Amino acid sequence: METYVFLNGEYVIANEAVLSFRDLSMQRGYGIFDFFSVQNGKPVFIEDHLNRLYASAASMHLAIKQSPGELKAIIYDLIQKNRIVNSGIRVTVTGGNSPDGYSLATPNLLVAQQHFTPLTSDQFDKGIRLMTHDHQRQLPHVKTIDYLMAIHLQPRLKEMGADDILYHNNGWIRECPRANFFLITQDEVLVTPSLQILKGITKNKVLSIAKPFMKVEEREINISELTIAKEVFITSSTKKVLPVSQIDEHVFAKDNPVSRFLHSHLTALTLNNLVTAE
Amino acid sequence: METYVFLNGEYVIANEAVLSFRDLSMQRGYGIFDFFSVQNGKPVFIEDHLNRLYASAASMHLAIKQSPGELKAIIYDLIQKNRIVNSGIRVTVTGGNSPDGYSLATPNLLVAQQHFTPLTSDQFDKGIRLMTHDHQRQLPHVKTIDYLMAIHLQPRLKEMGADDILYHNNGWIRECPRANFFLITQDEVLVTPSLQILKGITKNKVLSIAKPFMKVEEREINISELTIAKEVFITSSTKKVLPVSQIDEHVFAKDNPVSRFLHSHLTALTLNNLVTAE
Repeated sequence: METYVFLNGEYVIANEAVLSFRDLSMQRGYGIFDFFSVQNGKPVFIEDHLNRLYASAASMHLAIKQSPGELKAIIYDLIQKNRIVNSGIRVTVTGGNSPDGYSLATPNLLVAQQHFTPLTSDQFDKGIRLMTHDHQRQLPHVKTIDYLMAIHLQPRLKEMGADDILYHNNGWIRECPRANFFLITQDEVLVTPSLQILKGITKNKVLSIAKPFMKVEEREINISELTIAKEVFITSSTKKVLPVSQIDEHVFAKDNPVSRFLHSHLTALTLNNLVTAE
Repeated sequence: METYVFLNGEYVIANEAVLSFRDLSMQRGYGIFDFFSVQNGKPVFIEDHLNRLYASAASMHLAIKQSPGELKAIIYDLIQKNRIVNSGIRVTVTGGNSPDGYSLATPNLLVAQQHFTPLTSDQFDKGIRLMTHDHQRQLPHVKTIDYLMAIHLQPRLKEMGADDILYHNNGWIRECPRANFFLITQDEVLVTPSLQILKGITKNKVLSIAKPFMKVEEREINISELTIAKEVFITSSTKKVLPVSQIDEHVFAKDNPVSRFLHSHLTALTLNNLVTAE
């Protein structure tokens, strides 16, 4: 079955969805996006993701022709057309086909759905191995398409036997390229970085889940705190809550009771969101 | 007359030159390029630009299928086909059509020629107004397609009545988004930043022109040195040597004897390069 995408007002077969080389994404890496998973044929936390999408677009001077309601209808249409069981949807807004390759033009808008296999409980148990790297994302509050450093580092990740990157800015922990970072201290405080990061939708859900049950701090985390943490995990729309098994040389214990607790509550909250979105 | 571009092995009409939305430039802002001007039907300093292009590509794990000789032949073919009098050529290499929107794939290669009007002597006399901004380009030695910050700041530039941005990293001068930075001190030393910048082809030419005539220093420049400079200018393939008339609130004197001297020598060196490239 053909997969469709929505591109500038039309549904197009994905393999035929193309942009001019003059688009500012290709010319200057200029664009924003948002990404959310689709479960049981419904987009997860769609309101939060659309809010962030429009905020990112506004920050980058990119006008979205469609209203949030219209865009939501397009997303539901696409899900109906494509009928992909496990998937994610990415809405991208780029700088448009620039006549001089530098000035902003009328933005291009693309809504694309792609297969995506949710993590298994084995992957949860195994956890993820992170490699630290000193880098501050530019315009960190905006979900831009800039993943230059992350992709540049992919061969190094393989060399180091790591799965993903943990950025720090001169020793101050920030985030992974596509996930937020949390640790649990020896005295059971849940801590997550507060500054110069993307405010993840899943991160916010996890914070709201945790607050009634444990002490929560959003503050600067120094890299020296990592090895003394009781538990470490990352959050994202695709990874949900995923324990970290190793950071650089340091290996963490594998029981992860707090991560397990938050993961199961997040699963419940997600299902509840899908039911109430009916 | 139609303008052609060279895209992945074929000459294509520019208005029909498209890339899949799966290309990593649109997905993740991932790509590199180089740009050079064409004068009298010949590419200027083509060897230097091709050397840098292949170096940028290698840094970013992007394989270029064509040898430098083959690419040069394509560039000359394109100039023959298009016959644009004043123009520049941009060779772009992107991450390719990624199946998962993140992993590197077979790179897309595009050679595009575009109209470009050289600066007039009036524009030289008027100079350029810069606005400082605290920002360190990521992977600064590589000519990537990342101009996210520069384009994001365009509306602010207009508000401030400036023409371009001068990046500094916590007070240490770096470069403009598309040009290198020079100043002449009160005791006639030509100074240009040494660290965390793109090594401009025009910058290198200007340094080699200047060295027999004046003292030259490549070193860190603090933002506090700007207002006490005798002369300030920027260099690039399109701007050649262009005096700076203002940085933020500070206005510079308009005579610019050193900039004038270097500009005329650069013009001569460029013409000489075109003749010997025959």
